[in-house]
Amino acid sequence: MREIFRQDLEQVGDDLVLMAQKVRTAMSDATAALQNGDLARAERVIASDHEIDQVHDSLEAQCVTLLARQQPVATDLRIVVTGLRLSATLERMGDLARHVADVARGRYPDLALPPMAKDLFDQVVTAVNAVANDVVDLLEGHDLALATRVLEDDDKLDALHKETFRLMLAPSADVTGLTAQQLVDITLLGRYFERFGDHSVSVARRIMFLVTGDPSAHVEAVQS
Amino acid sequence: MREIFRQDLEQVGDDLVLMAQKVRTAMSDATAALQNGDLARAERVIASDHEIDQVHDSLEAQCVTLLARQQPVATDLRIVVTGLRLSATLERMGDLARHVADVARGRYPDLALPPMAKDLFDQVVTAVNAVANDVVDLLEGHDLALATRVLEDDDKLDALHKETFRLMLAPSADVTGLTAQQLVDITLLGRYFERFGDHSVSVARRIMFLVTGDPSAHVEAVQS
Repeated sequence: MREIFRQDLEQVGDDLVLMAQKVRTAMSDATAALQNGDLARAERVIASDHEIDQVHDSLEAQCVTLLARQQPVATDLRIVVTGLRLSATLERMGDLARHVADVARGRYPDLALPPMAKDLFDQVVTAVNAVANDVVDLLEGHDLALATRVLEDDDKLDALHKETFRLMLAPSADVTGLTAQQLVDITLLGRYFERFGDHSVSVARRIMFLVTGDPSAHVEAVQS
Repeated sequence: MREIFRQDLEQVGDDLVLMAQKVRTAMSDATAALQNGDLARAERVIASDHEIDQVHDSLEAQCVTLLARQQPVATDLRIVVTGLRLSATLERMGDLARHVADVARGRYPDLALPPMAKDLFDQVVTAVNAVANDVVDLLEGHDLALATRVLEDDDKLDALHKETFRLMLAPSADVTGLTAQQLVDITLLGRYFERFGDHSVSVARRIMFLVTGDPSAHVEAVQS
């Protein structure tokens, strides 16, 4: 019985890694679609979001079943409760990748991002894909150095997010020459990427708590 | 021992109601601050968000302790797991109210919303406060008719959200005469209110699942 329980716990960890990998792929495709106006790629992200949702649903059911049947305590309980939370967080990260793809698809055959925003968003895309990759590695290895890297990558994303406002608002809308649609898109994209970073930080803190047992490590740094 | 457990479960329910009440007050104050450019009220929302976070943290700790010590099954387990999830959802709803207050404060002494957006946002504010109120009533009484009302109120919010895009984008930015700052603010506010409605739907579906035990009722309708 305990051996089966051990396998079940490992399955929770494996499913979280699987979700994180799917999220990484979705964000990588969504950002490529955004940068290149690649309709097929945007549609692939949108069509495959339900796969992430499916792993989420099965993981959630599995965690509740584990709680009911195995009544875990101590570290085992922490693994199951963390599994419940991370699965919800990763599901939302998948939604955010889909939203990015939605913007890319909505503007096709045009590019959503005007030339003047290209450099900035190239940096954002690099940072967001780095953080998506960190999250996979972190869930695979529970390496606390990676948790710290997630926090640093998120700081970078936050700084870039502030830049997007500067880009849109200064010195004046007339000078930037952005259309209303472009302003709306840049605002939403900035928000999606910022939220993706916040959720990554949430994953990092939950893993820090799981590994160290230090509750201060799990203080929620996520802003909505 | 079981009597204490019963009290603990009731405490979970009471804390959820308390959080929902604080969220309702925060959103009511934030939207009033937005409509009237009321700086003091905006700052009150921002300053008191940590109270919602505190109830969240204590509720979460309490649920995990209940899982560890009481090892609940069946309905009791469902109550505790639902408590964990709803507490996270309500915490995010509090964050969104704070974000609305942030926008109001950021534009003070000006109004964030230009006159041409007033009518539409008056409707949005009415709908969002109605949904915040429904969530309190729902958590207090677990009345499934209220869950249905939340879904209907959210449909109204979604329709109004689509209207905000129409307002900003048609017929042309020149005609609307909105500044870049106003476009950014309206986009973000629209998103915050939409998310608030989505989270309310999530609460409604979780309660439907808790009351009916029907898993299809808990299918996550929330978009990120």
